[in-house]
Parts: sequence; structure tokens; C-alpha cells
Amino acid sequence: MNKNNIGKLMHSWASDLFPIARSITGSGVRETLSYLQKLIPGLDIRSVPSGTKAFDWTVPDEWHVKDAYVMDSTGVKVIDFKINNLHLVGYSASIDIFVELDELDDHLHSLPEQPTAIPYITSYYEDRWGFCLSHEQRVKLKSGTYHVVIDADKEPGVLNYAELILPGRSKEEVFLSTYICHPSMANNELSGPVVTAALAKWLVSLKDREYTYRVIFIPETIGSIVYLSMNYKHLKKYVIAGFNITCVGDDRCYSYLPSRDGETLSDKVALHILGNIDHNFKRYTWLDRGSDERQYCSPGIDLPIATIMRSKYAEYPEYHTSLDDLNLVTDSGLNGGFLAIQDAIKVIENNFYYECEVLCEPQLGKRGLYPTLSTKNSNNLVNVLTGVISYCDGKKTALEIAEILGISFFEVNEVIQTLVEQGLVKRAE
Amino acid sequence: MNKNNIGKLMHSWASDLFPIARSITGSGVRETLSYLQKLIPGLDIRSVPSGTKAFDWTVPDEWHVKDAYVMDSTGVKVIDFKINNLHLVGYSASIDIFVELDELDDHLHSLPEQPTAIPYITSYYEDRWGFCLSHEQRVKLKSGTYHVVIDADKEPGVLNYAELILPGRSKEEVFLSTYICHPSMANNELSGPVVTAALAKWLVSLKDREYTYRVIFIPETIGSIVYLSMNYKHLKKYVIAGFNITCVGDDRCYSYLPSRDGETLSDKVALHILGNIDHNFKRYTWLDRGSDERQYCSPGIDLPIATIMRSKYAEYPEYHTSLDDLNLVTDSGLNGGFLAIQDAIKVIENNFYYECEVLCEPQLGKRGLYPTLSTKNSNNLVNVLTGVISYCDGKKTALEIAEILGISFFEVNEVIQTLVEQGLVKRAE
Amino acid sequence: MNKNNIGKLMHSWASDLFPIARSITGSGVRETLSYLQKLIPGLDIRSVPSGTKAFDWTVPDEWHVKDAYVMDSTGVKVIDFKINNLHLVGYSASIDIFVELDELDDHLHSLPEQPTAIPYITSYYEDRWGFCLSHEQRVKLKSGTYHVVIDADKEPGVLNYAELILPGRSKEEVFLSTYICHPSMANNELSGPVVTAALAKWLVSLKDREYTYRVIFIPETIGSIVYLSMNYKHLKKYVIAGFNITCVGDDRCYSYLPSRDGETLSDKVALHILGNIDHNFKRYTWLDRGSDERQYCSPGIDLPIATIMRSKYAEYPEYHTSLDDLNLVTDSGLNGGFLAIQDAIKVIENNFYYECEVLCEPQLGKRGLYPTLSTKNSNNLVNVLTGVISYCDGKKTALEIAEILGISFFEVNEVIQTLVEQGLVKRAE
Repeated sequence: MNKNNIGKLMHSWASDLFPIARSITGSGVRETLSYLQKLIPGLDIRSVPSGTKAFDWTVPDEWHVKDAYVMDSTGVKVIDFKINNLHLVGYSASIDIFVELDELDDHLHSLPEQPTAIPYITSYYEDRWGFCLSHEQRVKLKSGTYHVVIDADKEPGVLNYAELILPGRSKEEVFLSTYICHPSMANNELSGPVVTAALAKWLVSLKDREYTYRVIFIPETIGSIVYLSMNYKHLKKYVIAGFNITCVGDDRCYSYLPSRDGETLSDKVALHILGNIDHNFKRYTWLDRGSDERQYCSPGIDLPIATIMRSKYAEYPEYHTSLDDLNLVTDSGLNGGFLAIQDAIKVIENNFYYECEVLCEPQLGKRGLYPTLSTKNSNNLVNVLTGVISYCDGKKTALEIAEILGISFFEVNEVIQTLVEQGLVKRAE
Repeated sequence: MNKNNIGKLMHSWASDLFPIARSITGSGVRETLSYLQKLIPGLDIRSVPSGTKAFDWTVPDEWHVKDAYVMDSTGVKVIDFKINNLHLVGYSASIDIFVELDELDDHLHSLPEQPTAIPYITSYYEDRWGFCLSHEQRVKLKSGTYHVVIDADKEPGVLNYAELILPGRSKEEVFLSTYICHPSMANNELSGPVVTAALAKWLVSLKDREYTYRVIFIPETIGSIVYLSMNYKHLKKYVIAGFNITCVGDDRCYSYLPSRDGETLSDKVALHILGNIDHNFKRYTWLDRGSDERQYCSPGIDLPIATIMRSKYAEYPEYHTSLDDLNLVTDSGLNGGFLAIQDAIKVIENNFYYECEVLCEPQLGKRGLYPTLSTKNSNNLVNVLTGVISYCDGKKTALEIAEILGISFFEVNEVIQTLVEQGLVKRAE
Repeated sequence: MNKNNIGKLMHSWASDLFPIARSITGSGVRETLSYLQKLIPGLDIRSVPSGTKAFDWTVPDEWHVKDAYVMDSTGVKVIDFKINNLHLVGYSASIDIFVELDELDDHLHSLPEQPTAIPYITSYYEDRWGFCLSHEQRVKLKSGTYHVVIDADKEPGVLNYAELILPGRSKEEVFLSTYICHPSMANNELSGPVVTAALAKWLVSLKDREYTYRVIFIPETIGSIVYLSMNYKHLKKYVIAGFNITCVGDDRCYSYLPSRDGETLSDKVALHILGNIDHNFKRYTWLDRGSDERQYCSPGIDLPIATIMRSKYAEYPEYHTSLDDLNLVTDSGLNGGFLAIQDAIKVIENNFYYECEVLCEPQLGKRGLYPTLSTKNSNNLVNVLTGVISYCDGKKTALEIAEILGISFFEVNEVIQTLVEQGLVKRAE
């Protein structure tokens, strides 16, 4: 799979998944997970019954929408869930009533400052009903009686998620999490699952893994809370790094959101990788959090989970509206998101302590690693080589050496592997 | 006592105390302490005999001035202690001589660059005599013979100070110190005792105190040294925070002088409170010290004493002159000084560690703490609430959380108390 | 020896040593060391046989040049080692051939961007031959046959260095190292040995030394590696500070290159001294290293060696060319280099922990250390004195106190000695 193709492929997956009416539970989630299961060998789909307690939360009933529309007095459906699943407020209750425009209006949501956008709105834990529409459409609604129909049920069922565990040499784990609970939106939702699917396929294909990989596709918030309630003791013990994968599909920038701790391996790796891709990447703080890192890094859970993004949720104008679509997310945007996290994982896989096998500088010349003719400028040629050697003191990881030298981890690692082959450097305990 | 009135009240106390001829010992100190004792229930006046050793120092003899003047040959008192007690160099020896202007001039002190100001000068530990006067007055003195009379005695007596101890739930102490040894000056002297008196009255009125409070009114330097010599072992064991209260009466700025350590609780609280009052408050360093923190923070004593001021001693033009008067010190200036230190004490009283009672984020919606309708902007509404929760990990104080969130301690504490009531957060050990 | 004379004297030593054809081994080194031995009482010359293993290295054969030139067809020596010893590539093999200009040109080295400079080039560990000449000279060479003669031999011999050990009260050592392996160049070579010689003479002359001093004159790289291979366990145990002395002779700037650790006593002292000489001194990093600190600070060796320089090697245009001559290095340049390192050593000799003998501030007035008349400005007069006292807490060295107060170590130390004499302060354990 070459680099140019993978962006295109991920975009095609996103296109397939785009029309599905996802929410935090229900058939939309299942349909999405089934699609991913066909892509990723070994992905298991799990279910947790409604009513299950998870810390301070309870798994909600399943929500299924058969139909939902607002019809005017001439029999025209002026708002129709079947045309765009953002039109219906998530988890709306069933209703079948005739109301005047005034009353209807209390249940409508639009964005005057973005008149062409349909907003995305949910009410998971409070029974209400509502419709979302563009402001342009809203202001055209005429006085009169409207027939409001929401044919939806909330009944005990299950919360679904999918899980892939790929063993490595070490029981220590790298943890990747993404969410599959938003309806038709592309950067803030589908970029996450498709980039995670591509990463999972790559991890499956590796002959050799240093660490065990745990990859999950869950509904946001309730899904991560449920997953943690069942697994947090194991995760606290074994997870050494990980990323919440979201908003990795547009082309405008790269973004970093730290773990709560801010100094975990995940943070260091994310900062290194993003710094090498684009020195102007956006740095957010824990105060800007907003996705499942809220659970993964909460007090007492404290997993080392950072977030590498393109345009961050809640920060770009199309966020949580119908404008967050498949034009906003591009082949190259997805490709950039994929490569950044793939590189981060490669760093984690290869980031060890090293120490010199000889005291003082080794004689590089006799090994063909140093120009034998010492001229005024020859030092520059071997600066990286001798720089790396000078820090192989058993106390710094390859990543720390790269940061000190101001060069990429991969350049340092290549030098280290040469030195290991020469018997000059060895991996330290 | 409302906020507007207390500034006015403190100013009236300062006006009452202004004319008293204070020095480091003597009747002026006693008269001042008696006045304060009437204001503050439970304030005890103590005395230490002249000649008592205190570390490297000895309590000096008492100094009493009955009369002091310089009379010209026409019988006019051209300089008269009874008109302004700054006219006499503090601890001047008795004398009754006739001198020519030339000889008199060697004993006169004025400030050519502040021609209307009478300087404040003392010579506690070396016998000499002298008069202070405005430069305008000095240049008008004509040649001729002057009769110099200083009718003062230095005899064994006592050094006086006053002490108030208010027990709290904890034996740990908050220590407030101010000085009462300067004659008629307002910001650098009386603002300290009157603000401290108001704070003491407020502390007495509290039904409930977390910490024990120790409040002392002492002569500067010799007083704090004497006090420490008798109490430092106890203070080192119990004092967790405290302030030297001086120069808290004008209206021009707020100032901070650190403890020698610079990182004590007192420093952190002072920086937080002043930062919230005025981001442009003046930060001094330990190198700018000049009052009793010199003793409280000296090596081996090492108490956590910082200083919150309005215009700092030695930094404003009227300092140690007759221009430091009751016009310079204002109702609102005193009120600001009082409120800053009162707020600092309130932080200390309420600054605990907290930890969440549930793992992962609590479900705020079901408790009415979170908007149940999730829209594009609803996250902003609950940022403070979830921010506070995310840091209740048992390892950060409420003050540290406030600093991380960039908001006031009081806002954080209000949120924490709500969370405690909801059973979501508890005080950590 | 007064300050003005010592620069001149060092320059005269450099002039004597300039013409000697030094390399890493051979008679040039021995001649140089003999000259230094006459200057420095007690300096021992050592030798290590060719073929001796030293960590990853082997002591090379000695290289002796009897003659070396390139003669044109008219019998004119167009390049002649006897005119400038930089003309011959260091460690060139013997040869006696006739070649056309084309072939000769492959063995010539010049600097087009510095057309008047003869570059300095060596090939210690790979057999080759070559000549260096100014680019101006090179472009004038005409087509034709040239007679190339290099009459040099490489045969087993010894590597020489010199060592001086001056015992002090403590077995802990201060280590000074400089190199004597470059031919006729002044800043990058001779400034090092002559400043080190002057420092050695000064150290010999001291009646009293706190620390033991170890001073070595070695060939760069191979010399330090050989010396470490024989002494590193002792050095790791006893050396508390030290400097690699190189490039201390021109007048343009002061420079600092840290140890690998960057926080050793040597680093702190170097930064203090250079900051006091010139706030704009140049700070390099470990990534700019290039001399024997590469060995002294290598992983597992880890000696606390920093470098104080004037214009740093590899950073000034004349570096490693014939332009680095006795005009570039000046009396005052050498004097500045000498004084900076001498001051650094004086700091190390006198940098102790101190603690007050009394609690609270001592009464300075009764000891004549404080103005007995307290006026508005008298605090300034005693700021340094009381500042020093306030930090004599047994936890800060005199150097750390100087850094906190923002004044020179020597000013602090003078105050401390006065306080020690007064019995107010004592050296802490």
C-alpha cells in the first residue's frame, strides 16, 4: 500500500460510512463496526447491555429511528431525517403531533452565523425532541400548522464497540482509541475510524511487534467509560503510551492536545513527531480537552493518552455541522493524519536506551565511519554520528538524544543501528 | 462592618495614633499598644527588661523625651519637638548648650532634594544628638548663637509589645506581625498597625478557625529579634504561613516581597491574591527586603513570612519623611491593603487537597450540573466545573488548581464546595 | 610578574615555539615539551610506546620529516616544507616521484575563499601524501613535470606528553589539559600551552593550595585517550573541576563551551567568571564541541571539564590556516585568557559553604560594620553585607550567593572573610 494510495483508500472508506445514521447505540453503530470488521482481520465486536453500571454512569437504552420529519399543511416534508440524519436531535423521543409554527420553533435549532449549516445536536440523557436545520431553511418556514412525526424507540438493548488486541514481545501495551457515534460528519468522526482502521491493518501486517497493541472503536464518552470500567486495572498496569484518534482528516494544520499529566511518553513522542512535520503545529492544553482523553486521563485512571490531530474539534468552523463533510476531509489530509500517528508508533516501537561499548570516542576512521583526511570542515560531516555516540550513556532514550541534537528520531535511530552493527553501542537494560 | 466603612474606620484609628511620639521603647509604644488593646479583645501587652540578651542583641534602655528644641538668640524656638516629633533624631542624648550656627549645623539633617520634608532619622545604638528639619527651614537659619535643649533620659526600663493568640481547630499557626516604633508617619508605620487591628478584629469575630492565629505588634528589628529569641522553636514547629504587615495604606499600587525561600505557602498565596487584584502589581525580590522579614526568614529561623504591601518602604518619595502623612494614606488605600491580606488569609484557611469520589468524569447532567442538550458551544459553559474535577486527584491544593485554571481561588473553592455537597469530591488526607 | 608583563611574556614563549614542526608524535613534540619543562619546575615528560592500546585506539608510529618539497622543471622549489611546515599534509608518507601538474593537483589542498591562506590538513590514520598551499600560489602553477619529494619516516617510537602534579590540602583535584600537536598556528595551539604554562608557574608559586592540581600537555585526541586509559579511574574519583585550555589568545571575544553534563562546578565557575568579564561572551553548546572535552566528558568517563576560550576553534576565519599567526594572538589577548582561567581557579580554591554563627541578623553596628545613624538611604550601604549574611545558611556556596546577589564571587568572598574574622560566620561542613 503506497503512501499516495492509502489516503485515497481511507477516503473511500469514509464515503462508505458517511450515510450511516450513527448514535451512541443502535444499528448505525453495528453497521459501522461490521464494515470495519471486514477491513481489519481479528477485530471483535462486543456488546454491553443497557442498564449496565459503569462508574457514575449507566448504559442507556438503544435508540432506533424509523422515520422523522416535519410536514407542512400542503403535505411537503420541510424537514426530513431521511435526507440528512443531522436533521433530528440525537436521542429524540417519539412524537406525532400537529403544532403551529410558533410551537414548532421552540424545538428547532439552527446557526444564524452559519446560515447554510445544519447543526449537530444530541440529548442523550434527557427526554426531549427537536429538529436541526439550516438557518436559511428555517427563516423560510411559513406560519401554519405542521405535522411533526418522530417514529423512534428507546428500548433496552446493547452498547456496541469493537476491540483488536495484537500481541507483541512485551506485555506492555500501546493503546489506540477512536469513536463511532456521530452521524454524517467527516473530520470530527469518520477521519478517526478510517485512520485507525488503516493503522490497525498496518499493525496486523507487521511481522514483529515490540509492544502489544490494543485498538478500540467505541461510542465517545459512555463507550470509553464503559470500556474503562471493565478494563482499567489492566490498562493502568500495562499501557505505556497511546492516542485518542479523532479529527485527523483535513488539510489545514496539525494539532496536539496533551495528556492531563503532559509529560508522558505519548506527549513526548507526539511533540517530537509534530515538531518534525511542521514547527507551527498548534499546541493546545489540557484545558482545551473535549474527547475521550477526559476519561483516559481522569484522576485515578491516569493513562498516558495524548492526541495528535489535524484541525481540532471545537476549533474549526465546520465542527459539529453538516459542513464537516467529505470535501473538508481529503485524501492528503487523511494521509497526513495517518503518517503522523504511524510515525509516533514507530518511535514508541524503537525508543530504547543505549550505551557505548567503548570508553572515550571510538576510532571511527578505521571502521570507515569518519573521513580519514581531517580538514577545516570535516567535523561537520560527522557531527550527527559523534553527537549520538556522545549521548549513548545508558541514561537517555533515542528520542531524548534526538531532541537534544535537534534532529529526527529516525535519523538518530538509523545511526544507532549502524553503531550497534559495528559493536560500538548496545541496548541498555 | 461593610467594606466602605472599614477603610474610613482604619483611617480614624491612624489619625488617633498619628501624634504619639513612638520610638522602639518608651511611653509612646505603651500609649499606642493601649489604644490597640481597646480595639482588639484579648490583646495582651508584654514587657521585656532593658539589658535582656536576644541572640546577638541587647534590649536597650528606654528613651523618654520631655522637651527638645533649638532656640535662637531672640528666644524663638526655631526647631521644636513639640510641634513635630520627627524634629528630634531618635534616641538623641540629653544636652543643654549654646552653640554657633556652624556647630549646630553639624547636628542638623535635611533633604535638599525634598526641601519641604522633615527627614526621619534615628541613632538607637550610638550616643549622639541631632535635629531634623525641612531644607527650606534650614537655609533660613541665620548666623548667631543658638540654645540647644534636649531634655531626654535613657534609663533601664522595658521593651513593650502586644500579642494575640486565637486558637483554631489545628495547632498549626498563621502568624501576622506589624510594628509600632515609628513616630508620626502614616504609610510606613500606622497603616500596618491599623490594618492588622482590623484583621485581628475580623479573626476574633470568626466562629470557626481552621488554624491558630498569632498576631503581634512589636518595635521593628529589636522587637522581632526579642520575640523570636523567646518563641522561635515554637514558631518553627507550628507556623505554616504568615505576613509582615507594613506599608498597606496608600492608593498607588500593590507590592509583593517574597520570603527568603520564595516558595512558601505565604508566597504562593500572596502571588495569587495580588495577581487577581492587579496583574501589574510590583514584584520585589529578597534583595529588596528591609523590614522584619529580615529576622523571620534569617538562616536557622526560616519562617514562611512574605509581605503584601501597597507602595513599598524605601520606594516611594515620601518614605521616612514628614510627607508620609494622613493625606498619603487614604480610606480606600487602607481598605485595599486590608482586603488583600484578608483574602490571603481566607485562601490559607480553605486551601486543601481534594480527590474525586468516582472514577472517570461524573455524570453531571443527572445532577443538574451540566446542560442536558449538547450543542456546539455547550462545553464552554462547564469548563470550570470539569476543569476543577479533572484536577481533584489528591495531589493538588485548591490554590494549585486555581493557578492551573487561571482563575481565582474563590471561584475554584465555590465549585469544590458544590462538588463536596454532591458527594463527588472529598477532602484528601 | 605584573599583569601587563605576563601577556608579553606568554607571547614571547609562543614566538619561540611557533616555528617548531609539531605533530601528534615525534621530535617537534619533544622539543616543545623540553621548552615548557624549562619554564615549569617539576614538569615531567612521559612517553608511551607506539602500538600501545588505549581503549578503541592504538598509539601510532612516530612521524619524522627530513625534507618535503615540490620542485618544478626549472629546479625551483614551488612548495617547501622548510619555509612553512603547514605545506605538508600531516603524517604524509614518503615519496620521490615526477608527476605532471594534473596528477600533482589531486594531492594539493587550498582554500579558494581564503586565497592567501595555507590550510592545515592531516591524515594520521590513513597512508596518503599531499601538500597544502595558498590558492593564490596554486593557480599560478604552470603545466609541466614536478619533482615531488617527501623524505619522512613512520616508525615505532613513542607518544610524548608532560605532566605536573601539585599537591594541595585535599586529594581532590583540579585538572588542566592543553595540547601540543599542531604545527605553526597561534590561537588554535600555542595560546593553549603558553597560558597553561603561565597558570602552572602561578600554581607552583602558591604557598598554599586547597586542591591538588594536575596539569597536562598532550597531543590532542590520541593524547587525551592515552592519558585517560592510564588514569581515568583515579580522575573519576578525584577530579572536581577542570578546564581544557585552547584558543585563549586573540582579542575578539570570550567563549564558553560546556561539559557534556553542563551543570558541573567547572561550568558554573566558567559562566560566573565570563559573565563578570563580558556579559556578551559567546555561549556554545555541547553540540559545538571539538577538542579533548570529547574524551574527558565521554560516557563512562564523565569528568567535569568545561572550556573557557577567546575566539573558539572552528569559528574564526583564520582557524586551521596559516593566518592563525602571532599577529592574531596578542599580549592582551593572552593576558585576558590567562586571567579568566586564573580567576576561575581562584573561585574553585575558595568556594565553600558558610553558615551564620548567630540566629537573626547580627548587630553589625556594635562591630563597626553598619552606619550607626539610620537615614533614609543607609540601607543601600550595607546591602551586600546583609545580603551575604542572609544567605549564609550552610546550603549555598559562596559562588551561589554571588550569583543570587548578582555580584562577583570575589566581592562576596571578601565580605565572608570579614564576617569569619568577626566570628559571625563559619565554614560549614
